[in-house]
Amino acid sequence: MSQSDKEKKRTTVEIFNRSYTIVGQESSKRVKLVASMVDQKMREIQASNRSLDTSRLAVLTAVNTMNDYIALKEEHNKILEELKNIKEKERKQDD
Amino acid sequence: MSQSDKEKKRTTVEIFNRSYTIVGQESSKRVKLVASMVDQKMREIQASNRSLDTSRLAVLTAVNTMNDYIALKEEHNKILEELKNIKEKERKQDD
Repeated sequence: MSQSDKEKKRTTVEIFNRSYTIVGQESSKRVKLVASMVDQKMREIQASNRSLDTSRLAVLTAVNTMNDYIALKEEHNKILEELKNIKEKERKQDD
Repeated sequence: MSQSDKEKKRTTVEIFNRSYTIVGQESSKRVKLVASMVDQKMREIQASNRSLDTSRLAVLTAVNTMNDYIALKEEHNKILEELKNIKEKERKQDD
């Protein structure tokens, strides 16, 4: 999602009471879903950290999401490895 | 990663020239990795959007990371489905 993507779609969303026009290849539906998830996570983090300014709140939201991403990536790599092993075993049985 | 996690570790990191003390169950190593990835993403987005204030930059970084998360989640669910089908097929062959 950036200004430089080839097939550009523009979607305007509201996150934490400010408007953002997101330009990218993703569908408007996807962009709206992503925006609402970020908005929700910001509000959750704010609820337990009332003194944070918006900038710090958004950074912590990014940190939180990046942590979820890395955990999922590790899980995903494990499953890919398992799938690869199963397929190799099947291939050997077919030989 | 929040103030309410049971086994609390405190790690101080710097993201986009501000300090954050992250409290949570994750190892310091993991928190530092996550922080450096967020810092890098913020700098990348800044490089192509020079006029953004830090707060908007941080929100867009969160949006970008959430988009990556959802894309990976979809891919992960596909692989889980594939694995499930293979295992069911194997089970039927064993019957």
